[in-house]
Amino acid sequence: MAKLWEGRLTDTEKIVDVFTSSLSIDKRLFYYDLTGTLAHVFSLHNSGILKADELKDIAHGLKELREHFVEFDLNAYDYEDIHSLIENELKDSIGDKSEKIHTARSRNDQVVLDEKLFIKDAIIGLVKLLQSLLETISKLSADNIRLIMPAYTHLQKAQPVLVSHYLMSFFEKFLRDLRKLLFNFEETDILPLGSAACTGSGYEIDRDYLKKILRFRDASKNSMDEVSNRDYISDFIYSMTNIMLHLSRFSEDLIIFNSTEFSFINISDSFCTGSSIMPQKKNPDILELIRAKSSLLVGNLNQILIIFKGLPSTYNRDMQEDKTILFNAYDQTYSSIEIFIKLLDNVSFNQDVLNKALLNGFIEATDLADYLVKKGQSFRSAHKIVGKVVRYCLGNSKNICDLKIEDLKKFSEFFEEDLYKSISIDSCIESKNVFGGTNKRRVEKSLESAKEELRALEKTISSLEKRVIDFDDLLKIF
Amino acid sequence: MAKLWEGRLTDTEKIVDVFTSSLSIDKRLFYYDLTGTLAHVFSLHNSGILKADELKDIAHGLKELREHFVEFDLNAYDYEDIHSLIENELKDSIGDKSEKIHTARSRNDQVVLDEKLFIKDAIIGLVKLLQSLLETISKLSADNIRLIMPAYTHLQKAQPVLVSHYLMSFFEKFLRDLRKLLFNFEETDILPLGSAACTGSGYEIDRDYLKKILRFRDASKNSMDEVSNRDYISDFIYSMTNIMLHLSRFSEDLIIFNSTEFSFINISDSFCTGSSIMPQKKNPDILELIRAKSSLLVGNLNQILIIFKGLPSTYNRDMQEDKTILFNAYDQTYSSIEIFIKLLDNVSFNQDVLNKALLNGFIEATDLADYLVKKGQSFRSAHKIVGKVVRYCLGNSKNICDLKIEDLKKFSEFFEEDLYKSISIDSCIESKNVFGGTNKRRVEKSLESAKEELRALEKTISSLEKRVIDFDDLLKIF
Amino acid sequence: MAKLWEGRLTDTEKIVDVFTSSLSIDKRLFYYDLTGTLAHVFSLHNSGILKADELKDIAHGLKELREHFVEFDLNAYDYEDIHSLIENELKDSIGDKSEKIHTARSRNDQVVLDEKLFIKDAIIGLVKLLQSLLETISKLSADNIRLIMPAYTHLQKAQPVLVSHYLMSFFEKFLRDLRKLLFNFEETDILPLGSAACTGSGYEIDRDYLKKILRFRDASKNSMDEVSNRDYISDFIYSMTNIMLHLSRFSEDLIIFNSTEFSFINISDSFCTGSSIMPQKKNPDILELIRAKSSLLVGNLNQILIIFKGLPSTYNRDMQEDKTILFNAYDQTYSSIEIFIKLLDNVSFNQDVLNKALLNGFIEATDLADYLVKKGQSFRSAHKIVGKVVRYCLGNSKNICDLKIEDLKKFSEFFEEDLYKSISIDSCIESKNVFGGTNKRRVEKSLESAKEELRALEKTISSLEKRVIDFDDLLKIF
Amino acid sequence: MAKLWEGRLTDTEKIVDVFTSSLSIDKRLFYYDLTGTLAHVFSLHNSGILKADELKDIAHGLKELREHFVEFDLNAYDYEDIHSLIENELKDSIGDKSEKIHTARSRNDQVVLDEKLFIKDAIIGLVKLLQSLLETISKLSADNIRLIMPAYTHLQKAQPVLVSHYLMSFFEKFLRDLRKLLFNFEETDILPLGSAACTGSGYEIDRDYLKKILRFRDASKNSMDEVSNRDYISDFIYSMTNIMLHLSRFSEDLIIFNSTEFSFINISDSFCTGSSIMPQKKNPDILELIRAKSSLLVGNLNQILIIFKGLPSTYNRDMQEDKTILFNAYDQTYSSIEIFIKLLDNVSFNQDVLNKALLNGFIEATDLADYLVKKGQSFRSAHKIVGKVVRYCLGNSKNICDLKIEDLKKFSEFFEEDLYKSISIDSCIESKNVFGGTNKRRVEKSLESAKEELRALEKTISSLEKRVIDFDDLLKIF
Repeated sequence: MAKLWEGRLTDTEKIVDVFTSSLSIDKRLFYYDLTGTLAHVFSLHNSGILKADELKDIAHGLKELREHFVEFDLNAYDYEDIHSLIENELKDSIGDKSEKIHTARSRNDQVVLDEKLFIKDAIIGLVKLLQSLLETISKLSADNIRLIMPAYTHLQKAQPVLVSHYLMSFFEKFLRDLRKLLFNFEETDILPLGSAACTGSGYEIDRDYLKKILRFRDASKNSMDEVSNRDYISDFIYSMTNIMLHLSRFSEDLIIFNSTEFSFINISDSFCTGSSIMPQKKNPDILELIRAKSSLLVGNLNQILIIFKGLPSTYNRDMQEDKTILFNAYDQTYSSIEIFIKLLDNVSFNQDVLNKALLNGFIEATDLADYLVKKGQSFRSAHKIVGKVVRYCLGNSKNICDLKIEDLKKFSEFFEEDLYKSISIDSCIESKNVFGGTNKRRVEKSLESAKEELRALEKTISSLEKRVIDFDDLLKIF
Repeated sequence: MAKLWEGRLTDTEKIVDVFTSSLSIDKRLFYYDLTGTLAHVFSLHNSGILKADELKDIAHGLKELREHFVEFDLNAYDYEDIHSLIENELKDSIGDKSEKIHTARSRNDQVVLDEKLFIKDAIIGLVKLLQSLLETISKLSADNIRLIMPAYTHLQKAQPVLVSHYLMSFFEKFLRDLRKLLFNFEETDILPLGSAACTGSGYEIDRDYLKKILRFRDASKNSMDEVSNRDYISDFIYSMTNIMLHLSRFSEDLIIFNSTEFSFINISDSFCTGSSIMPQKKNPDILELIRAKSSLLVGNLNQILIIFKGLPSTYNRDMQEDKTILFNAYDQTYSSIEIFIKLLDNVSFNQDVLNKALLNGFIEATDLADYLVKKGQSFRSAHKIVGKVVRYCLGNSKNICDLKIEDLKKFSEFFEEDLYKSISIDSCIESKNVFGGTNKRRVEKSLESAKEELRALEKTISSLEKRVIDFDDLLKIF
Repeated sequence: MAKLWEGRLTDTEKIVDVFTSSLSIDKRLFYYDLTGTLAHVFSLHNSGILKADELKDIAHGLKELREHFVEFDLNAYDYEDIHSLIENELKDSIGDKSEKIHTARSRNDQVVLDEKLFIKDAIIGLVKLLQSLLETISKLSADNIRLIMPAYTHLQKAQPVLVSHYLMSFFEKFLRDLRKLLFNFEETDILPLGSAACTGSGYEIDRDYLKKILRFRDASKNSMDEVSNRDYISDFIYSMTNIMLHLSRFSEDLIIFNSTEFSFINISDSFCTGSSIMPQKKNPDILELIRAKSSLLVGNLNQILIIFKGLPSTYNRDMQEDKTILFNAYDQTYSSIEIFIKLLDNVSFNQDVLNKALLNGFIEATDLADYLVKKGQSFRSAHKIVGKVVRYCLGNSKNICDLKIEDLKKFSEFFEEDLYKSISIDSCIESKNVFGGTNKRRVEKSLESAKEELRALEKTISSLEKRVIDFDDLLKIF
Repeated sequence: MAKLWEGRLTDTEKIVDVFTSSLSIDKRLFYYDLTGTLAHVFSLHNSGILKADELKDIAHGLKELREHFVEFDLNAYDYEDIHSLIENELKDSIGDKSEKIHTARSRNDQVVLDEKLFIKDAIIGLVKLLQSLLETISKLSADNIRLIMPAYTHLQKAQPVLVSHYLMSFFEKFLRDLRKLLFNFEETDILPLGSAACTGSGYEIDRDYLKKILRFRDASKNSMDEVSNRDYISDFIYSMTNIMLHLSRFSEDLIIFNSTEFSFINISDSFCTGSSIMPQKKNPDILELIRAKSSLLVGNLNQILIIFKGLPSTYNRDMQEDKTILFNAYDQTYSSIEIFIKLLDNVSFNQDVLNKALLNGFIEATDLADYLVKKGQSFRSAHKIVGKVVRYCLGNSKNICDLKIEDLKKFSEFFEEDLYKSISIDSCIESKNVFGGTNKRRVEKSLESAKEELRALEKTISSLEKRVIDFDDLLKIF
């Protein structure tokens, strides 16, 4: 196959072709390269470099390629990269006119364009998926607003908490991730075309026109920076790594809650898998795989960053490896969120078990200390007194509420009959009456506010969607 | 030393104290813990939990601690952490009243507060340093606006470029990093106090009041999320990692430019170091160290992320390691930028060497191809023809401009006398006349626009500075 | 302070000194640098470069430095590195004769020597610590040989297992780590001195003599490789990372076993810490910190590897950062193993809880399937039949052993009365009678074999100890 | 498709199948799973669990599968994993008898077996490739024994060195990597079968017999450890990461040497690629890709390690991700070494350029200092004097050898006429006459010793090859 640079070099061995070819990876950019090329030829025409009939033929040729795509097995082709494939296939289709499409651009800016178009789409895809995840979490929270569970710190029972409050803690995490993605979108949304190999195009193309038709918010300000920059990729992978780490924590919780010992939740059979040897097993494989995949993402982030350690300015072929990393990271993240949403839809909480779990572990101890404080003790003294009460209970196999008032008075004069009420599980929940606390009305309000967030997100998404263009829409300009 | 939780446990061995103590690290949060504690007691008073005279005594005690700080050798103290140190020292100073300061908060939300106060300050510090770096780059660019150098891709000479254009490519990189830091600031600027151990405070403190006096833009919405969240730390480290990687690329360029073979730049003796055995060496150690330190940052980012892989919800002691990572990352980044700025001030470009470097390497080849295109060839054909010209020159040890027009005509009929002018170095620069290109007027405009960016940054910084508060200012509320 | 290379450069700013100084880190190599220097001067004398009286004075001077070390606050000195400190302090002590110690070596080979001497010692230290850990595990195993617990896969109950068998699974893991350390020792045990700056010493020193007195097993074969090589550091950090990851898994198990829900173990109060707000908590902080520190090690490994990505040949100043990484990694690993051993000494298993845990979760299901196989069913059919039995039990809230033989016969004709015995917990243990299985006699034998391993290790350690030399022993040559 | 565990669970949604299926990855283990299964059925027969005719039919069925493999498009099958594929396809072929093959094993020990068989082969493959690389380096060294080049530290000219000596520095690096691979082989060479799900097989199979026919050096000692262990994978990836980092350093050198400014080497056109826009470029893309791929390996190492951070004991589904990481790492490493060998075969050194490069940069300065030392100066004084000479030369644009003896005497009385000879490039090489130094006879001896290493390696490889068995050989037992 003809290389784009065959004039200078005399021969290239097969093994070199295989080693340096990126087609098996960047074929995924086919549509984006086609769209970018179409915009580029519009721009060449706009600047008087292409005549109207040349533009017409090339646009038509690109449209044909686009239509034939389904029949393509891109792997079967023996090109160096997706750019070469399109250029050569176009030549087969429309002849020498095709040779003009490489005027005023270089693969160095072209590949940035393809990647940015891909990522803008990919971000919107992930934002929508996170939207669905947030909705699922809100719904599950609303459905379980009456359930109470132990909150844990150090995997030790800490205090009673509404199941809804627990679930909504992940709503906040994924909302942060979503804000990161929106920030990434802005940083990605910069037109690279015109940067050419590294010093800027030698043709006076109109970058404002290009920016407008490709719907970028801005054009890059320095050609050398633009062809050497892949921050938009590492930023995106960083955001996805965060999503995956948050999923890994959620998964860890659910794996533990799914153990026989905890039994806080049920996961539908359809979202568990069995053992090849132990017939009784109901393994939370999906959650384990997600947990593992978060490690893959951390490694992907690592990879893209290391490539740039000490890399000299502008383009170096090292940067070609960015795409494998990007696509791997994206696919793992996308499929993990997707299946996690469905799994969450298939999780139910075991009310009886949760209720029993609140009975032991001295989960009301903090509230007992708060009781003393409200009676006038300093928190430090109260903390010590309750510590002694707990030690006494442990030594005598009792719970705090089993102790009689006389017994309690031995620890502090401040204890009175009203304490039993104030350390009931319901009181423990009720008393966390601050913004962000687990008090039921507070949690209900947070569910309301989540709904508003989701409504706002709806608008955000539809405005993002107006900021991308695909091949068919672009063709309509014509 | 008294532990904050000594009621329950019977004994703690020394080795455990040493292993679990974080004082040697978190002593650095002394001021921030003091400030946070002061705000907290204002809030306790505001909610009626502390009486006026209690507030007065505690505030006075904290002020004393703050004043004695310089005399402190915080290492000498044998406390579990900075929170215990302050609480215990305060008790020594003002007696039992001090015990009330832990009411309505937990170390779980307190440490988040301290870290966020630290990071808000740290971000402002880095933003200012980046401002100075951007100014240094702009100045060096402006000073060298007339110099031309070869631009490289694949460490191979590519095309002529203004030294200014080259330098400004890093302006763009650090500007992106700066935008990341500003985004981090917003994500960090959320009040944690009130979250308590994990389910929210059991006292009706006014988080709006706290938010106002501590100058946070918002309060956290879910207590469980807030005590389990360290995204603001990994985000910050991610941004710093990017800064360091950009510095590593700049350093790599300068190390190469500083080699005898390139000799593009001089670095003042004061910014080089010598060899213990080779008297002639003038080693760019600072640049090499910065390059290495970028590896440290990638590792730090890795560390903070891995800690959270599969970590169960809310607070786990694993999170204590966040501070070592954060402080290491910050110190390395800060000192690297700081010294890089000074080094850059001590770099000069060797005009003669640069001029000579433009003579070989066929750096005008792209423009020769563009010449043919402007004469009507397709870019592909032009590219091939010029490739053959280059091969011919290599075989005959000539430069393109050494070839006579007759010789050139053998490669293409389109070559005519005007080509010599169009492939002069000046024309190569001139012809990159697109926004973002190396054409001199374009670069001058980009320097103007950089000045505007810097003016806008001035305002941004002063608005950020109004969004932090220190102990002394907070005390004035009183 | 005089720099070792002050002839060439005219000035060095303070900030440069601070940024490039490594003394705060490499002061830790004081003894090793002293020892290496002593060996070096012996060698210079041996080759006729130093006269007997010069050797005597220098050796004496070094001895004095060594004795004054305790009085040293090495931080207080303002030297570039530990090599400069020793050379300059020696000069203060014995005058100009000291200047000869740098003949025939460079800091490039000197620092490798120091690091290798340190690491040889450090490996022996870790090997001894692992020995102690292995002993602790064996002892705990032997003490609990009669206890049975559920083994878990996917955090789901799998099959009954001896607590000893479970514990000995970690014996194997740490034994692998130990083998890695021994391999590291051999790879580190190569004399660098004589490599000088990078092309070999220009003096005909006798490297065999040096090798002998410094007790290296071999001398490096290529000077350029030797000064550019830090594989011995990354190898060592890799081994330590493995130790820490194994500890993190052991810790994770123990954290889960320590939860109220599992309650399989008790950890002495002295190895837990409390909560500042929740008086009932008994948090496994040490285990959580170890888990987090394993993340630090992965990051350290990452750092040392990234430094070498794309680093040009021989020495570059980037390599100076190796020591921070090495010492951090070593200190974290050493202290983690040390405290883990003590903690393990303070863990006890709750027999009652374990016994109860074996009653549910259908832990005997595999053995029931094996029962059917032994009666002639294929394993696949048996697996399916038992799956149905388990589903029936779940639907009817029964355990397998609660089912009557008539009920069971509905699932398979092969079930007969003898099945109850064959699925008793004791039978489940008994039946795993393969080498490496949990059958009690097999486990007892494995404890025997562990003892042999430990006896062999004793010998290994004492042979390693003969392969290092310290300053005082070296001085005796004199 | 029938799952291996379908008795217990009621339904599995398609998306779950897709997410949890590993067939697209582990199909690569087809041969190994087949071989392992054949050994397993031999063992079942050996222990009396399978009858002779059952064994015969199953072995025959497996042989058929093995023969049909080329026709297989394993992707087309809709199985959970390679184990299920083989079991089900075998059933289609020989009917219900196939169901017995899962007796006495679990996928938990089966997958370890497959991986270990794969890795033993893979290590031998890499060892052979490294052998070829070492030979190529030796040959290139021998061919260039007469050439001298500048050695660099800090990318600054340091001292003259034989090109051979420079090249052989990489011989040492890859030899270290090779020793690591041999160590990995031993650690991998442990039979897992018999460990079953985690507590050992419930059937008295003879693990010694299995070990012998599968040619493992030992059997695993603890079933719980064995199914939870993947150290053999991370060890292998660590070794490959080292190879790649060494290649990245070699590549970096060659990229720099290939720049116009250095021009030390030529790389054949067939191993360079061109630019799509700049016709003159001859880009070292292969070397850049290798440099980038070293970053991928560091990330792969990171991934496999992170998966195990805090992972509970024995098997968790997280471990399934090990294979993607392993195969990626192996493929990148294998193809990188392979092409690097060919590229090295196509590198030649430019003698003229090297000779010129030795003339400047004061590369003889160390030898000038050594000259003074041999005349009786201390090294420190000599170093300072030569520093002044260099400064003088720089100020007067001279080389040292241009200075007259009178001028030199102004710097030191010790300078005499014989100095010119002693600082000639040949003398500089000659004087490094220590083991490991660049003296020509020393380097020639090192080439001899390299030949011996390679002969020894030949034997090592043939002994390794006897320690693996493939399906066809195993079948011959029958």
